[in-house]
Order: sequence, then C-alpha cells, then structure tokens
Amino acid sequence: MNMKKPFASPEKLREIAAEFGTPCHLYDASGMIRNLRRLQQAFAWNPGYKEFFAVKATPNPYLLQILRQEKAGTDCSSLTELIMSDRCGFKQEEIMFSSNDTPDEDFKLALKLNATINLDDISHLDTVLRLNGGQKLPEKMSCRFNPGGVFEVANGIMDNPGDAKYGMTREQIKQAYAAMRDLGVRRFGIHAFLVSNSTSNAYYPKLAKLLFELAVEIKAELGIELSFVNLSGGIGIPYRPEQEACDIEAIGAAVKAAYDSVLLPSGLGSLSIYTELGRYIMGPYGGLLTRVQYLKDTYKLYAGVDACAADLMRPAMYGAYHHITVVGKEAWPADHIYDVTGGLCENNDKFAVDRPLPLIDTGDLLFIHDTGAHGYSMGYNYNGKLRHQELLLQQDGSVRRIRRNETPRDYFATLDFSGLFEDLSEYGC
Amino acid sequence: MNMKKPFASPEKLREIAAEFGTPCHLYDASGMIRNLRRLQQAFAWNPGYKEFFAVKATPNPYLLQILRQEKAGTDCSSLTELIMSDRCGFKQEEIMFSSNDTPDEDFKLALKLNATINLDDISHLDTVLRLNGGQKLPEKMSCRFNPGGVFEVANGIMDNPGDAKYGMTREQIKQAYAAMRDLGVRRFGIHAFLVSNSTSNAYYPKLAKLLFELAVEIKAELGIELSFVNLSGGIGIPYRPEQEACDIEAIGAAVKAAYDSVLLPSGLGSLSIYTELGRYIMGPYGGLLTRVQYLKDTYKLYAGVDACAADLMRPAMYGAYHHITVVGKEAWPADHIYDVTGGLCENNDKFAVDRPLPLIDTGDLLFIHDTGAHGYSMGYNYNGKLRHQELLLQQDGSVRRIRRNETPRDYFATLDFSGLFEDLSEYGC
Repeated sequence: MNMKKPFASPEKLREIAAEFGTPCHLYDASGMIRNLRRLQQAFAWNPGYKEFFAVKATPNPYLLQILRQEKAGTDCSSLTELIMSDRCGFKQEEIMFSSNDTPDEDFKLALKLNATINLDDISHLDTVLRLNGGQKLPEKMSCRFNPGGVFEVANGIMDNPGDAKYGMTREQIKQAYAAMRDLGVRRFGIHAFLVSNSTSNAYYPKLAKLLFELAVEIKAELGIELSFVNLSGGIGIPYRPEQEACDIEAIGAAVKAAYDSVLLPSGLGSLSIYTELGRYIMGPYGGLLTRVQYLKDTYKLYAGVDACAADLMRPAMYGAYHHITVVGKEAWPADHIYDVTGGLCENNDKFAVDRPLPLIDTGDLLFIHDTGAHGYSMGYNYNGKLRHQELLLQQDGSVRRIRRNETPRDYFATLDFSGLFEDLSEYGC
Repeated sequence: MNMKKPFASPEKLREIAAEFGTPCHLYDASGMIRNLRRLQQAFAWNPGYKEFFAVKATPNPYLLQILRQEKAGTDCSSLTELIMSDRCGFKQEEIMFSSNDTPDEDFKLALKLNATINLDDISHLDTVLRLNGGQKLPEKMSCRFNPGGVFEVANGIMDNPGDAKYGMTREQIKQAYAAMRDLGVRRFGIHAFLVSNSTSNAYYPKLAKLLFELAVEIKAELGIELSFVNLSGGIGIPYRPEQEACDIEAIGAAVKAAYDSVLLPSGLGSLSIYTELGRYIMGPYGGLLTRVQYLKDTYKLYAGVDACAADLMRPAMYGAYHHITVVGKEAWPADHIYDVTGGLCENNDKFAVDRPLPLIDTGDLLFIHDTGAHGYSMGYNYNGKLRHQELLLQQDGSVRRIRRNETPRDYFATLDFSGLFEDLSEYGC
C-alpha cells in the first residue's frame, strides 16, 4: 500500500501557503529529476533512448528547462507548445510534433523549427509536402500507427484503439513510408499510443513487441529500416493509495527482451527507443495546495476550499480520484466523510465525493495529490473563475513562483477592444 | 420533430466565414430578443417578474447589454461576472449574486454593488455580516433552498438534490431568515435549482409549488413575508432533433395556477417571480461555425474541423449531443457515418460520434447547433489550444465581432514575468 505522503513536510507546506497564498500548484524539482533519471536508467541499455516530455501535461517553461538540462526533449501537439519548447531552448530533433487534425500554421512552425513531425494520418502528407515547398519532405519523419480493434494489455486491462481518432492503419502506414521515402525522408520512426494511464507493467512491453514486429515487416516488405520506435505515453501513476506504482526497471527490461528477440535477429539493432511519459514523470511531483474556507452540513458534510475545477478539472471531467491529505492531520483517523468542493457554480466541482478524511476545520490546508500532470494545464475559466499560480520547490529547498495568478484583466483580455475593462482599479484589480 | 435549421441561411453563413474566418461562435440577436420577450410575456401576469440572465452561460458584454435593454438582470456567481455586469450597466437589484463556497472578495464586490446576495449556506451569514461592517446585513437578501432526497419532476425525470452541494435544509433556511430579520434584512427571497436542462413542462410548476408552500410555511412560522421566489434555471432546450422544446406559455400559466392556489389564499399575492434562464434564452441562438480541414478514413470516417474542445467542451465533458448541419447540404441524405473531431490531443475531443451526416468534403462549413449557452464560456486551453472569436448577427443583418480570437500572447500572459514570451514576432504572433 502506497502511503501517499506529500513531498513536503506539513511545516514546509504551511510556510509556502503563508508566503505565497493559496491555492497553488506546487511542484517538486528533486522528485521529478529523480524520477526522470530513473526512467532514463531503465532504458539506458538502448544507446539512442530519449524521453520527449509531453508539454500538454505541464506546460510550464521553468519545468521544461529543468527537463532539458536533464536531457529530455519535448512532445508537442500545438503551436503554443512548439513556441514554448523553442523558447526553452529545445532544438530540432529534441522536439517531437505529434498532432492530429493539424492547422497549417502548426505544421509550418514545426517545419521551421525542424522538429520531428509524427504524422497522424496519411492525408497529412500532402499538407506537409505543400508547406515544405512542394518538392520534398523533411529528412526525419514519423508515422502514428493504430492497430484498430481492442488492445488487451493484460487480464481485463484493455482499450479500444479502433474507436480512437488517432493514427493510420497497417496498410496506410506502409503506403505512407513508401511515399515518404520517395519524397526524401531518410530517417523513419513509428509511434503508437493505445492505452491511457496504465499502471500495468505489461503495457509498454506488449506495445513494443507489436511495433518491433511491424518494424521487421516494414523492413521486409519495403526495405525501409526504421530509426526509432516511439512508445509514446500511457504509463500511469497510482492515483489511489491502494494502487501499486508500475516498476519502470521491469518495464525497461521487458522492452529490452522484446527488442533482443524481435529486432536483433532482423538486423534492426540500432533502432532508438523514444518515450513520452509526461504523466509518469511529473504526475506525482505536483500537488494542489488549497485552504478550507467553509464547512457546510446539509445532507452531507462539505468542505469548501479556495481552489476549484478551474485549477484541476480531472475530478469534474473524468470523475478522477485524487488523494487528499489534510496537512498536519496525517496521523488522525479518517473518521469523517466529506465532499470536498470548489466554488464553481457546477455540481461536478468536487475534488472528492464521500471521502473518509480526518475532522476538518475551517482554515485547514489540504494537499490534493498527483496534480503534476494534466492539472493546471486542463484548467478553464468557466463561471468566470480564474486559474491560480504554480510554484516550484527547488532542489535547495527554496520556492519560486513559476506562474502568476490570473487576474480579471487576463480574463477580459479578448474583450480589450470593447473599452469596457481598461481600468479595473475600482474593483481592486 | 424539430428540424434544427441554423438561424442564418447557408449563403449568410458562408459570407460570415469568408469575412471573419473560422471557427467562430455566432449569436443571433433577433432570436435571443424574441425568445426573452416570449419568456417575459409568459410571466407577465406577475407584476414583479424579472429574468436574471445567468452570466455563466454566455459571459459576453455585448450580449448582456442587449439583454439589459430588454429589461433582464444578471445572475452572477463570481467576481468577474459581477465586474462584467457592473460595466454593462446593471445596477443594484438588477444583479443577483448566487454563489457557493464564496471568496471574501466576491462578497465584498457584491455588497459594494448592492447586488442581491442569495446565500448558499447558513455558514455564509457571518461572513457577509463581517464584510458588511459587522452590524447589519443588506436590506434585501435571499436564501438558497435544497429539499434533499430525490426530486421527481415527472415520470422518470428526476434529479438528486440530496447529492448536490447547493443550498440549505428546511431547518437551516428558517434559522437563516430569523437571523437575517434580526440583522436588518427587510426584503427576503428564496431560490432553488433542483434539475438541470429539463425540457419537461412540469419542472418549473412543481418547483414553484414547493417554494410557494415553503413561503406560506415561513410566513406562518416566522411571520416573514417573502418578497420574491427565484425559480432559477433548469428549463432546458431540445439539443436533439427528436426532442420537443418546452412550452414556456404553458409553464408560465402552470406557475400562475400554483401561485393563485397556494399564495393568494395566504396573503402572499404581491410576491415577485424571478427566473435565471441563461440556457433557455441563449442556447439555441448560438452556433459554432467551423470548417472541415481533413477527412480521415481508418476504422471509422473522421471529419476533422478547425474548432476543438477548447471552443466547445460539452461533448467532451458530458458526452453531450450537439446537432450538426453541413452548410449547403441541408437537403442531402444523411447517409454517411462520421466522427466529427477537433485537433486537441485527447480522444474525447469529438463534437459527434457515429453521426449520420451527408457526404462531407474538405472545406465544408459545419454549423454546430445550440452553443449559445455554456459553449464559449466552458472553453479551456488544454494542449495549448486557443479559444476563438464570438460574432453577433445583429438585428439589421450586419455582423459584429464581439470577442477576438485568443493569441499565443494571451496564452503566455501569466508567464509575463519570465521574459520568455515578450516578443513573439518570429512566430508571426
């Protein structure tokens, strides 16, 4: 059983709340670096291995710069993610661009930055060719594969790639590689994402074997030797205390076993493994620190906090579980049942429903776990709610604000031509 | 059967797309005004009747100003909604403030604007008293009621107020009224919201009867005569073509029947009826106009458009149905099955799944219906996607841009202290 302790002590969390105010997303630099290094170690048997951090998970330049120092690249799927990667110093092959239904301007910037474009569909080939001048494609490109049907990871763990909008069929991907070769591509990759947030150790090895076998088939049929296999994301984290974390060393070893048995005999032993494990790397190393404003006792007990779904939408959108620690009451019995709610005017704005927790007092600090990925980034402004700051707990123990709070001025920005919201001083903004 | 035609002709929609670009939310001023007037007419039997438009539904000042000219007020539940209402000229009793788990600064502004505060919980009384100087409460206030349990509107149509975070119990609300009277409140209201998006004609009358009976009980027990009953929102719209719209005249008449039978005999015949029908008023008078960028044929047919869940999240969040018209192909047979997808890197970014539609070509314009409420307002920036413009089709047939597109600069605004995103000209931004 995973005990789910916050990565900072109650004293430190109280100190941070006092200095910076609540709510805030707090990230742990030491934890994320340690975790990334462990991942890299698990795949160190592959000389070309590289992690491309999914910017979507946590699009903050201060975090990306740390990841870059640690030799990660970025996985982007939009214009702004490309801009952020560029400004953080990621160059050329350090940027993977995996997008679907892609606007021209996004492809244009990906081409300009010489990012590695991972084509979602064969219909995108013409677009990239046109935007690249019409004569040839970039020298290094990738294709996204979708095997269709149902993909069973292990007993009872499965997903439905056949219902997913992503990727090409087996026939299409071969057609794409052949066309790409004729248009000047010299280094080819393959990419697939079949299961989301899986804590099974079996997913990556099974996916790897599938893609390795396809690489062998492509070599046999087309004479094209793939340079890399991008296993993408999908390795999950234990959001619930009763879940076990996956064993990244075992996963790395099992991918190696598939590599050795499938690729080596086929002469594909110099193929590089790429991963895009945003959630795995960052998820546990972020927490949402929020203070209890109101206790409400009607047909249930409610603890109303100063964060809301604008800061963390996963519970509202997916009914996702996020563990909650009442700071300073870690040892108290969880003998009360609360709904932990935000103030957004939607009944799904609940960080927890019927959650056993220690007795909560107004003013208590709550640490909502595992918001390091798909937390801040998934926030919205529904109900006119503003998104809050991000803080970084640095390796030396100091804390740095790495994103400021949104203000009403930000909220009204796209109405700037109206003249209505220029001077907001009377509202204290 | 509701035929679900867009409120503008194919020619007009093409003209708008050509002039302003896609995607855009387009609103129909004539339709919303006509609909609001019809609602007001249905309740004209009540001299104090007033509609308070839920700003959350469509927080655009140009729309609010039209609604204000048409004698609607606003229903706010956050600081920015209060600011917007004030800047649009809504004054004092024209603003209802119904919030839950409310930050102090929001209450402060509501007090400053002399908006009518609708208390969600008895625990908020002390806060409002403190923020109002500690001696007395505002002269006009309201309380939100939650009857608990299950509320059955009609056969099979029900909701679970007992699981909702909103409102006070019967005992609490009486306690609150007694305390409020002692603290200077002279005009009292009651508010309840028990069912969301109901197209049953039975919801409002049944809710009204419940609240009217409670008003009688409060008069008998406390000697307090309520000044208004706020029936709030909940009246829905027919998102699906096979759904019938509710009959607002029948609803108004049935509320009057309850009024006459319950309130008149109890001497409460001067009580005002308030409503907060954002979705009902605006929902059908907005559409998301988007262009098909890609057609994809893998295990399904996909039509990839230039809008995404950043512009309209209801399908991703709730699996909500939004009808789609392929502009110019209204008379074609719907003999192809498509998933209509956006480019956000999430598999739930689908405006429609397995939807029968006419044959779609790249470049076709799609009109996604009923985005007039909870459309733009619920957008997010996940995956670094930007939210798009809002346009108003004015009564004279001209079109006005009432919100501009978000830009990368807006997206990076809360990182303005980083120095990384000041000059974005190299990206064409």
